[in-house]
Amino acid sequence: MTTAPWRDPALPAAARVDDLLSRMTLEEKTAQLYGVWVGASTDGGGVAPHQHDMTADYDWDELITRGLGQLTRSFGTAPVDPALGAQALARAQRRIMAASRFGVPAIAHEECLAGFTAWQATAYPVPLAWGASFDPPLVEEMARRIGGDLRAVGVHQGLAPVLDVVRDPRWGRVEETIGEDPYLVGTIGAAYVRGLESAGIVATLKHFAGYASSAGARNLAPVRAGVREFADVTLPPFEMALREGGARSVMAAYTETDGVPASADPELLTRLLRDEWGFTGTVVADYFGIGFLETLHRVAAGPAQAAHAALTAGIDVELPTLKCYGQPLLDAVRAGEIPEDLVDRAARRVLLQKCELGLLNADWTPEPATGIALDSTANRVLARRLAEESVVLLDNPDGLLPLAPGTRVAVVGPRADDALAMLGCYSFPSHVLPHHPDVPTGIEIPTLLEALRTELPDAKVTFAAGCGVADPDTSGFEEAIARSAEADVCVAVLGDRAGLFGRGTSGEGCDAADLRLPGVQGELLDALVATGVPVVLVLLTGRPYALGRWHGRLGAVVQAFFPGEEGGPAVAGVLSGRVTPSGRLPVSVPKLPGGQPWTYLQPPLGLAGEVSNLDPTPLYAFGHGRSYTTFAWEDFAGTAPGIGTDGTYDLSVTVRNTGDRAGAEVVQLYLHDPVASVTRPDVRLIGYQRLELAPGESRRVTFRFHADLSAFTDSSGRKVVEPGALELRLGASSADTRHTARLTLTGPVRVLGPGRRLRCETEVTEAA
Amino acid sequence: MTTAPWRDPALPAAARVDDLLSRMTLEEKTAQLYGVWVGASTDGGGVAPHQHDMTADYDWDELITRGLGQLTRSFGTAPVDPALGAQALARAQRRIMAASRFGVPAIAHEECLAGFTAWQATAYPVPLAWGASFDPPLVEEMARRIGGDLRAVGVHQGLAPVLDVVRDPRWGRVEETIGEDPYLVGTIGAAYVRGLESAGIVATLKHFAGYASSAGARNLAPVRAGVREFADVTLPPFEMALREGGARSVMAAYTETDGVPASADPELLTRLLRDEWGFTGTVVADYFGIGFLETLHRVAAGPAQAAHAALTAGIDVELPTLKCYGQPLLDAVRAGEIPEDLVDRAARRVLLQKCELGLLNADWTPEPATGIALDSTANRVLARRLAEESVVLLDNPDGLLPLAPGTRVAVVGPRADDALAMLGCYSFPSHVLPHHPDVPTGIEIPTLLEALRTELPDAKVTFAAGCGVADPDTSGFEEAIARSAEADVCVAVLGDRAGLFGRGTSGEGCDAADLRLPGVQGELLDALVATGVPVVLVLLTGRPYALGRWHGRLGAVVQAFFPGEEGGPAVAGVLSGRVTPSGRLPVSVPKLPGGQPWTYLQPPLGLAGEVSNLDPTPLYAFGHGRSYTTFAWEDFAGTAPGIGTDGTYDLSVTVRNTGDRAGAEVVQLYLHDPVASVTRPDVRLIGYQRLELAPGESRRVTFRFHADLSAFTDSSGRKVVEPGALELRLGASSADTRHTARLTLTGPVRVLGPGRRLRCETEVTEAA
Repeated sequence: MTTAPWRDPALPAAARVDDLLSRMTLEEKTAQLYGVWVGASTDGGGVAPHQHDMTADYDWDELITRGLGQLTRSFGTAPVDPALGAQALARAQRRIMAASRFGVPAIAHEECLAGFTAWQATAYPVPLAWGASFDPPLVEEMARRIGGDLRAVGVHQGLAPVLDVVRDPRWGRVEETIGEDPYLVGTIGAAYVRGLESAGIVATLKHFAGYASSAGARNLAPVRAGVREFADVTLPPFEMALREGGARSVMAAYTETDGVPASADPELLTRLLRDEWGFTGTVVADYFGIGFLETLHRVAAGPAQAAHAALTAGIDVELPTLKCYGQPLLDAVRAGEIPEDLVDRAARRVLLQKCELGLLNADWTPEPATGIALDSTANRVLARRLAEESVVLLDNPDGLLPLAPGTRVAVVGPRADDALAMLGCYSFPSHVLPHHPDVPTGIEIPTLLEALRTELPDAKVTFAAGCGVADPDTSGFEEAIARSAEADVCVAVLGDRAGLFGRGTSGEGCDAADLRLPGVQGELLDALVATGVPVVLVLLTGRPYALGRWHGRLGAVVQAFFPGEEGGPAVAGVLSGRVTPSGRLPVSVPKLPGGQPWTYLQPPLGLAGEVSNLDPTPLYAFGHGRSYTTFAWEDFAGTAPGIGTDGTYDLSVTVRNTGDRAGAEVVQLYLHDPVASVTRPDVRLIGYQRLELAPGESRRVTFRFHADLSAFTDSSGRKVVEPGALELRLGASSADTRHTARLTLTGPVRVLGPGRRLRCETEVTEAA
Repeated sequence: MTTAPWRDPALPAAARVDDLLSRMTLEEKTAQLYGVWVGASTDGGGVAPHQHDMTADYDWDELITRGLGQLTRSFGTAPVDPALGAQALARAQRRIMAASRFGVPAIAHEECLAGFTAWQATAYPVPLAWGASFDPPLVEEMARRIGGDLRAVGVHQGLAPVLDVVRDPRWGRVEETIGEDPYLVGTIGAAYVRGLESAGIVATLKHFAGYASSAGARNLAPVRAGVREFADVTLPPFEMALREGGARSVMAAYTETDGVPASADPELLTRLLRDEWGFTGTVVADYFGIGFLETLHRVAAGPAQAAHAALTAGIDVELPTLKCYGQPLLDAVRAGEIPEDLVDRAARRVLLQKCELGLLNADWTPEPATGIALDSTANRVLARRLAEESVVLLDNPDGLLPLAPGTRVAVVGPRADDALAMLGCYSFPSHVLPHHPDVPTGIEIPTLLEALRTELPDAKVTFAAGCGVADPDTSGFEEAIARSAEADVCVAVLGDRAGLFGRGTSGEGCDAADLRLPGVQGELLDALVATGVPVVLVLLTGRPYALGRWHGRLGAVVQAFFPGEEGGPAVAGVLSGRVTPSGRLPVSVPKLPGGQPWTYLQPPLGLAGEVSNLDPTPLYAFGHGRSYTTFAWEDFAGTAPGIGTDGTYDLSVTVRNTGDRAGAEVVQLYLHDPVASVTRPDVRLIGYQRLELAPGESRRVTFRFHADLSAFTDSSGRKVVEPGALELRLGASSADTRHTARLTLTGPVRVLGPGRRLRCETEVTEAA
């Protein structure tokens, strides 16, 4: 008996898939277009919105006789021992292969936003902390390790990264994003994708697109955005992550923009993504998102119509259910209401991906690796380093930090002695374990209090929680004030509790009405400040909070964005001085809690002016962060300032560590476009370089600016480079310019195509 | 000597204007394209943003030798006696006519948002109160009276109405709008235009378009809106006011939408407005708005480029200055940088309007009327009636209102005894008199305290302010609490102080960071509620405020939106029972101060759901308002429910006053579209009818729904009627449906052109 062509690894993938498709029945083809969530159907947990409404009934044994597209979150649904879970997944794959005619296994997907969302797996810092690191290579290394761990247990696809650009800091999912600038999100996001894909895992870009702009910052609210905001802010990170990262999957967003749901938008999912950008991977639905076309968007009259709209738009796979792409799709195709071509198109993409993953090969077996350890020492070392790089020193006016040896320290606040204070909502302990209160965290997570006691063995460290994260009880203030009064320094550790759907103060479905610190934490801080003992405010949060009320009244301010399992030691290291802080803000920190939405990407009309009493100027600007050492920015130089609209301009600066301890500076390049045919952000990031410098050391960094980087979408919808003056501003933040190069672009307006340059090339050399 | 053709009233206007233009020099033509603000150039006041930066230097005597397009606010800049002002204006016109070759007078324009913004002129309720009245004929009558007063003093053009649709209640200019629904804004706005134009005054629709959507509700902030929001929410009131009201001028908005400033948008100001809608009047700039293209938008490199962009887009007249259309335009045309055709196009429109106004006729003289009285008894009667109709009784759970005779009433609150509490920011006393502290208000404005004492002669009325409007001082609480404790009822009169550019809590440039009551008024209300004495909350505001904190703890809640000079007696009449309240909310009243923006026009994703902890459901819905009497809605009937996509459907209901006092019910018709090709608001207003009913009386109202009223802008940008199911909901508010008609539209998708029906015809008959 000869091997069927589709089984033959020597043949081209496309030929193999066409052969297989030609053999498949309609049932078998549609079965490739959905996933099932075995654990969730019997689990009462609710780790996804509308999980219960939207899960279809099916008989597993009957179902898998058709084959199966995807298996949903074998690890991410309930606590399972990783090695046992890997064996269970392998068993499920063997059953699928045995039950179906062609024996094609399912793609197993998992969440891996900030580490594999699995019990006992490393909880890395959240994406907002990656943004604060301004360190793509380190993020790439982390993603490579995440990918390796996913591979080891038999997983093929990771539902990350989130490439949404923050448009309103009140949104609960801000912690899952990389920040409020598309260039930062794109460069860090692309690094994550490279890392994950380098381990053989299919990275999934999400949420495509617009979700972060939800009106009023309510999770899933309609997006009010125009085509230029969409093209110039929302889309670029996806383009960069596809082109530079090689992501093989894209997840359609839940949301609708200006009335058009992403999941039913062929312009977005097909015309732009595939025809213009050349994407050839799979587009998957966000969980239950196809059904939402009927229930939450009302653009479909039922599941079959929702399936039709989603398939037409270009969603290949329904996750994590078969509510629409199961029986309703089958019936509608048989009734002639949905063209079978649409099914074939999606099935071809799915099978092509399975082929590329080796899943069609006769010798593929689901056996997992041995010696599975999802929180290895190497992981922890990396988690520590990324956490350390992500801590942002916002203020330290009198050098209160680092803490002097032997200091009496009162550690106060509801986030000081809670391991979960370090974790975001997609970490396994925050995401799943609330439904399993008797199950231990599964990983070691030192609290900041524990870490400080380790870090400062000679210090007298006392503790009082003071209050809860979100509850109104102030009865603990008294003790907190007393502890503080006995100390030289009060370290007030405030912030968020990550959770899902209202179970936290940050995370998916935990949106903020304004940017006041949650609960009575602001009042606790008032009381601590009133004692007169210097207060070091440490924030462990998933979003920025308004700090104007305490400006000038705090000894120091340290901002960490859920820094992961090694976050406690990392922050403690900053407080002790073992670590020189080097994080920079990936989001603006506002003065006042109201007046949102606002991010730094404002055209002139969005800046402070005399026409409104509201001043949106942030307290700490995007890109801001202090150090314990000092840096000089010297020998600024540029090439000839007149360039064509297709020209380049090099600008260089030497950064010297002029202090007495090692540290890192982040050199940031901003573009200011004085006059354009449509309004432009006053400044926007177009390049950056993190430089680690020993005391006295200097490095020279050169940015090669290409005119393409000044491109924007004009009033006719074209991406253009316009001639005229430009300013390139090298700064230590978006509001702290150190050197400015003034260029003039000459020549015609250039209309750019998909090949346009997205990145500012940077070179670091030894200083002369 | 024969009369020149342009002077000949027997010739067609176009021929006259062409003749005149052919005789004019370039200077003379451009001189028709700007206004000057004589008073403001020497006045330190600042009644417009950037007034000082943007006023050009000129020599008046030299300037008027060229002629002059417009004269700015002879009355609205400083207090002048109306009769003397009219003579001064006539003198200015005579000088212009004498100094220039052709002797063409200027168009004199004034603000008239809620009455002529002039000293001693009637201050009517603000537009938000008109919205609350749901009474277009009464608004039309008011506008006719305003127009008559403008005419009497020699004014030709009024810079009203504001047709912006509220998109964020924090915006300072909410008080100037008619509400958050485009149908309500359009129908009331068109009525205002009809009234003003019927008096011979050029009505000016503003702000065209998008201003109300300013991001973060900051005055002039960039607008983030897509084409469908713009087409289906922002534009319809303008279309209705042009078509039904016959407005002869449109003012370009300051704002930019999605990067494109309205003042530089030919798509908006020419393609849509003129080519599609057929508008033939003048487009004027908002004050200094052309210069803002350089300074606040940075889409022009200087005044000449700004002039070029604005002229190209379609702005005919620069107001109130000649910063761009003066010398810079002249120089640029001479240099060949701006085509003279653009000047001719604009000048033709201006002169055509002057011709239609009779200003080109040889017999035109600027002599004003005699016996000028801008606050006649007839005006005051009308102001009273509109104020009374606009008061909204939000809640009265136990029938505490109307107040029983002989009640001991403690009137408390910073708005109770301040005449200015009745007025919006465009009233002369709020707008201009702050710069003239020694000048009296010029009109009689009873405070609510004074009116209550008159209204309740037998009641014991005491008073304490309790606190200021916006300051943090709580030292007056004690007295307020004491007064309240001695009384049977506490009437807490809270709200806004209207002002300009940060000088108030509501008004242009007085934006709110959130919807908490200003200052410590919320804390005062807490303290009053805590006394246990029943509290009647009376709000005199320019926007809705969050009232959830007091829900269920107040005896009654009365909402008035700056009700004008007769507002005190109107509100007092509601409290006493002389007036049966009949106002309905033109804006939603939220529960919580945060989470904005939100209005009731939400697609399903914008409603409360399980995916966010934030519940945007308002405390009091759009359209809500209680009465002292009761109404039955009976004998609901409809015609055949299957209609074509070009068909009509009649639905009727009989409303009977089942109580024992006269009152008015507002029957509201809402459309619910269960499935459409893009997301649709869950409900939206498509018709309404106010019915005044004596006790026992009933009237039958019939709405003729036409399929055009279900039209929306589809994903390809066409205005379409789609076949399918529809629900027509007759309700007492957007959340209180009394009867529902279910229709099915059959036939093809219909693509509508500019002639589509905008209005639901309504017929009121005697009940059978």
